[in-house]
Amino acid sequence: MKVDDPELYYMEGFPVPETPAPGEDPKPWIETFVIGKPLPRVDAYQRVSGSAIYPSDVSFPDMIYGVVVGSPHPNAMVERIDTSKAEKMPGVRAVITGSTAGADLTWKWPYGNSKSKLFDPHCRFEGDAVAGIAADTPYQAADAAAAVEVQYKVLPFVVDERKALDPAAPVIHGKDNHVGKPDTYERGDVNKGFAEADVVLETEYRTECLIHTPMELHGCVARWDGDRLTIWESTQGVYPVQQDVAGVLGMPLAKVRVIGHYMGGGFGSKLQAGKYTVIASLLAKATGRPVKLFLSREETFLSTGNRPPSNMKLKAGVKKDGTLTALEFTCLGTGGAYQSGGISLVDWLIRDLYTCPNVRCECNDVFINAGCARPFRAPGHPQGSWALEQTLDALAEAIKMDPVDLRLKNIPLYSQARAGDPPYTTTGLKECIEKGAAAFGWKEARKKLSQTKQEGHIRTGIGMGACLWFVGGGRPPSTIVLKLFSDGSANLNMGASDLGTGTKTVMAMVVAEELGLKIHNIQIENADTGATQYATASGGSKTVPTESPAVRAAAVEVKRQLLKIAADELKTDVQALTIRNGEILSSREPAKRIKIPDLKGLKQRGVIVGIGYRGPNPSNKWVNPFGAQFCEVKVDMRTGEIEVVRFVAAQESGRVMNRLTYDSQVIGGITMGIGLGLTEMRVLDGNETGKMCNRNWHDYKLPTALDVPREIVSVPIDPGDTEANSTGAKGLGEPVTIPTAAVIANAVYNATGIRVTETPMSPVKLCLMLAERDRRK
Amino acid sequence: MKVDDPELYYMEGFPVPETPAPGEDPKPWIETFVIGKPLPRVDAYQRVSGSAIYPSDVSFPDMIYGVVVGSPHPNAMVERIDTSKAEKMPGVRAVITGSTAGADLTWKWPYGNSKSKLFDPHCRFEGDAVAGIAADTPYQAADAAAAVEVQYKVLPFVVDERKALDPAAPVIHGKDNHVGKPDTYERGDVNKGFAEADVVLETEYRTECLIHTPMELHGCVARWDGDRLTIWESTQGVYPVQQDVAGVLGMPLAKVRVIGHYMGGGFGSKLQAGKYTVIASLLAKATGRPVKLFLSREETFLSTGNRPPSNMKLKAGVKKDGTLTALEFTCLGTGGAYQSGGISLVDWLIRDLYTCPNVRCECNDVFINAGCARPFRAPGHPQGSWALEQTLDALAEAIKMDPVDLRLKNIPLYSQARAGDPPYTTTGLKECIEKGAAAFGWKEARKKLSQTKQEGHIRTGIGMGACLWFVGGGRPPSTIVLKLFSDGSANLNMGASDLGTGTKTVMAMVVAEELGLKIHNIQIENADTGATQYATASGGSKTVPTESPAVRAAAVEVKRQLLKIAADELKTDVQALTIRNGEILSSREPAKRIKIPDLKGLKQRGVIVGIGYRGPNPSNKWVNPFGAQFCEVKVDMRTGEIEVVRFVAAQESGRVMNRLTYDSQVIGGITMGIGLGLTEMRVLDGNETGKMCNRNWHDYKLPTALDVPREIVSVPIDPGDTEANSTGAKGLGEPVTIPTAAVIANAVYNATGIRVTETPMSPVKLCLMLAERDRRK
Repeated sequence: MKVDDPELYYMEGFPVPETPAPGEDPKPWIETFVIGKPLPRVDAYQRVSGSAIYPSDVSFPDMIYGVVVGSPHPNAMVERIDTSKAEKMPGVRAVITGSTAGADLTWKWPYGNSKSKLFDPHCRFEGDAVAGIAADTPYQAADAAAAVEVQYKVLPFVVDERKALDPAAPVIHGKDNHVGKPDTYERGDVNKGFAEADVVLETEYRTECLIHTPMELHGCVARWDGDRLTIWESTQGVYPVQQDVAGVLGMPLAKVRVIGHYMGGGFGSKLQAGKYTVIASLLAKATGRPVKLFLSREETFLSTGNRPPSNMKLKAGVKKDGTLTALEFTCLGTGGAYQSGGISLVDWLIRDLYTCPNVRCECNDVFINAGCARPFRAPGHPQGSWALEQTLDALAEAIKMDPVDLRLKNIPLYSQARAGDPPYTTTGLKECIEKGAAAFGWKEARKKLSQTKQEGHIRTGIGMGACLWFVGGGRPPSTIVLKLFSDGSANLNMGASDLGTGTKTVMAMVVAEELGLKIHNIQIENADTGATQYATASGGSKTVPTESPAVRAAAVEVKRQLLKIAADELKTDVQALTIRNGEILSSREPAKRIKIPDLKGLKQRGVIVGIGYRGPNPSNKWVNPFGAQFCEVKVDMRTGEIEVVRFVAAQESGRVMNRLTYDSQVIGGITMGIGLGLTEMRVLDGNETGKMCNRNWHDYKLPTALDVPREIVSVPIDPGDTEANSTGAKGLGEPVTIPTAAVIANAVYNATGIRVTETPMSPVKLCLMLAERDRRK
Repeated sequence: MKVDDPELYYMEGFPVPETPAPGEDPKPWIETFVIGKPLPRVDAYQRVSGSAIYPSDVSFPDMIYGVVVGSPHPNAMVERIDTSKAEKMPGVRAVITGSTAGADLTWKWPYGNSKSKLFDPHCRFEGDAVAGIAADTPYQAADAAAAVEVQYKVLPFVVDERKALDPAAPVIHGKDNHVGKPDTYERGDVNKGFAEADVVLETEYRTECLIHTPMELHGCVARWDGDRLTIWESTQGVYPVQQDVAGVLGMPLAKVRVIGHYMGGGFGSKLQAGKYTVIASLLAKATGRPVKLFLSREETFLSTGNRPPSNMKLKAGVKKDGTLTALEFTCLGTGGAYQSGGISLVDWLIRDLYTCPNVRCECNDVFINAGCARPFRAPGHPQGSWALEQTLDALAEAIKMDPVDLRLKNIPLYSQARAGDPPYTTTGLKECIEKGAAAFGWKEARKKLSQTKQEGHIRTGIGMGACLWFVGGGRPPSTIVLKLFSDGSANLNMGASDLGTGTKTVMAMVVAEELGLKIHNIQIENADTGATQYATASGGSKTVPTESPAVRAAAVEVKRQLLKIAADELKTDVQALTIRNGEILSSREPAKRIKIPDLKGLKQRGVIVGIGYRGPNPSNKWVNPFGAQFCEVKVDMRTGEIEVVRFVAAQESGRVMNRLTYDSQVIGGITMGIGLGLTEMRVLDGNETGKMCNRNWHDYKLPTALDVPREIVSVPIDPGDTEANSTGAKGLGEPVTIPTAAVIANAVYNATGIRVTETPMSPVKLCLMLAERDRRK
């Protein structure tokens, strides 16, 4: 696959699919000519050369720097703030606190009903905002922050959700630390199910709290121009940030312009405005100067979200033939100090991944004195998968069945957890498992391992697991404006952010596919509430499936107008016209042809503008991506080190829009799964201070290039879903990280006989478990 | 008229006009509720506070500064350029000339077929570009420019169009200095017409060359991001600049983004890209840095356009009853060193302002060694008016008729100069003259002056004149996108530049009128080829009449969608719904009402997007603005000083969209007319050097506040034109400056008996003429 082939890149001369009749919706593509090709990013040069401007690069000549003064305590009351020293320090332009006029604002925490003050006198987690400062340099701002004297009444804290319901634990909100009633789900009769089972297993699992910690920090540049506020924010969604800021400040939406340049990753932690966004806006207003406020890496660890920890118990029953008879699941989770969905979607895979008539789930969410959770690449799912996929592995062993066969025995064709059992447009799960196993050489590897007695301290193991993602196929609303210039180049006006995943590239390909334009003649604007059209935040693996049909609809509308102009000028029937290589041709009259730049009608109009909306999906079926993953590990029995040797990910995410960006998502998702399984955890000091101990990239262990296997094979499964939407794309970003950690755990068990039920599977932990087993022998 | 009345400003509770049925075009407004009101500019705060960002304010942290090295000679061949010294100077980042790779480009001069090199070895006017330099500071760039050593072969020059056809004159292009064949026009039989006349007068007139010299200099900031070029330019039209730059550089249009922030005046001189735009782009590419290149004031005098000089002869015949029988007009003009329409539209008023059966015009355009002409607020018209309106004044005197009555005798109802004699939608000329005369007190003033023998050295006189502007009512194309946010605020996405004339304010009023929104909830984006929609350049007095119907169409489309959502939610008939004060009401069922922010359907969609196109005007009639002006002067017979005491301008420009911006245009147009009549002229040294002698605001005399009468009365004439377009707006900016100079000249004649046929009527010139008359007595 030559990805840098200029013939491919420029896409000269590919044919253009049939145009729908006027007014007719475009039919799903069957054959494609650009879509699916491994085209390099349209903005690759900018990204690689460093010329791409990220919000953290935005700068103005008169810009000053903001900083947030955060509480050093996990639970404390602010009794007095003395800012007088800070105000007198060199370069300091403004100091604001809750008692500053205009700053006594209410803050609504996302994902729940929690409200507090923007600068709340009760700081319920370490790092919550107490004051904001703007100064001429970031260093002056930091020095001034250190000079703000806050008198705190330090309160007892609880930072471990397992201790939050102890009668002795301090209560963070209300009567006790329950966020609400347990979230329960039930179908069938689990007791009956367990009674029917030949084998019943019950295991406790735990996943640790993870921090998103994307490459680009959280923050923004805020500037006022009269009564209008412009914010350049590192965000997954300019429109949600606009709504958040306008809401807090009580401004009309049209007066808050949010611009998302390139952005350096979010993973769910940049779906809304932060307190920093509002504080930057207030500081900019107070000083009449543009204010840049980016949190430090340390601050982002404390206050910009996390994948919450989960404490799960899963009881499962299975017949000897592999039929699942019952699943009973409980979970204790926490979203931190305010409502933020600490147990959100943890039980979804239990409810819906495998056919099972009897299921009961109960999830409990509690408050602790720690930063709030936020959606984190497949909220809840990797946690649930950690429990479910390890349990299935154990069940398979118990009934002496290949784990692949156990899963194939329980493939669902409709959603059991939803009212009315809606069918799936496609269930690629079976194909994912089968083709993934074949690509991995699962049977052969399993056979070989079972026939080999492993000697020495390096042990090899293989493992697998499957997943679904609870939503796919995208949904309204989205609006796209596509402008075709008179020379046949085009400008795509899209409000969705490209998080670095290649959204812009895919959308350029959709335009190229539909209109027969060269990729390098298509320019895509950055998301901007002032200048681009409406889009929801890029997240939930729904960006491509939501936006691409709207982009296609806009391109179809441009094509309709373009061909009408051509038909008038060529004096021919519009239905016979197609576009090839920038030229409009009649299939009936070969002499009738004209190049786009030669169309007089186009020149007169200047541009053709097409507007495209995201309509509802064409069927009432449910659109889910599925996946199955397989890995091989080597475990060093002396050191407890785990090397992930190779990975195969077979993902059914509908149409492969671009094979390069597809593979990038697979590599990224597996890498994050390795983080969850092997290296990452937030460490809070539960004894003395309640503070976070590893708030940096040195102590918080992200997987690096050396932790990622050289061989990650992506096996795209495309059953040709024509019911999802008009481009056939589903979501890939999240499903591909869901089973990874559990798959590694299964492989580790296969290699060592040790089942690690708590993340991360660190060398120390594995050593201790191996030593414990040896002790018991 | 309380213009700062907040009730008015916020427009609470005004009723909303009837919505057209779906698919139906909006009918022209009859009654309006916001339109016509004297609303202050929506961006008044930004403009007055200095927070508005003009292109000359755009700055980047890594920005460097560009400068153009221009020829010091009006006619010279570049024989050798040595840039080695300049390249070694401190801070210098790039020096480019015609021999630099990538800079050997062809430049197409606007308004004609002339082409040259961007850096042409034959410099045909002073200031033409020879090299470009970028350096860390503007001062370093200027120093380096001085260090570029150019060896010129200096050639003989001709800088006076009256000498350009002398056999001895150097030939600038081709065989002789004729730009082309004479531009001729003829109807009827002028000889027959003159034979029928009772009085025939023949007079020579001359107007001097004027420089636009707007407040903001000409220039841009250019930045590359990979293969995309972004240009922040002080321009009247972002799309023409995009086309020019893409054309010269051979780039796809979509890859050239031109952004027009606020801009500080153009008057026709910023309708295209300049060489400076391309040179800035090349320097930015060469250095990989954003480059700011704004010309100096001196440079703009040489190379960014002018109102060309004209040498006219008008012979006119009239019967005793005031019937015009024949007009014969010749003109010699020049557009400078390249084709640029030196005689463009000079004869239009002769052809079309007054009913006259026999007309002959012949205009000749020649090359001279001076900077090129560009459209200048009503191209050709003030020059033609200078001849025509003074001649009519003289004819009236000759037949002892009131000049008002002479003009009323010859009111046209259709366009005589156009094939098929198309009628006008309205001819407000008669009303302009009558109501203007009444407002001025013309009859009374004339009577009083005729009865008074003026003694002393201060003499009073009155004068009048009329005009039309050859095009009005706007025309396609224009595309507008209007976004209604879920809180009922709106964002208007318009590609047209607001030159400072109030376009944004008028468009916000159109949205408010149609949708019942408060003015301060409407935000209008700056023109931007990437982010806003297509518009032609703001010029030709067509911005409001072109854009406002498109804006209205977009608002009507938003309203249609909004009311449909409301009808569904209120379960009522959409036809009965109206919007009042942000609330949707049913005229049939009073209980059914809902506020815009409460509409669930709107919240779900995020925004409603309406797209509006500028359709053709509803009738085949011609849409012309008309006007009549009256003034009183006092002339100091000792010093030749002329004081313009008061002015009345009665203008028929269709609907008054905003009375404040309307009056601003009137004041501005009359001020520029005073400049033409009394103070302004380009002075070229025709003897020694051919260089411009007064290339600055000290020596080139613009009228200042002290030259403008305290009393400028605007009398809007609105005959209720429902055939022009759906808002009823015509153009005002240009018509209002056309007759001013001639009106003053007529008043000066009335005061002194001296007819000044050459602009400017400077004190020295008038003194000389008074002395000459005294000498002859």
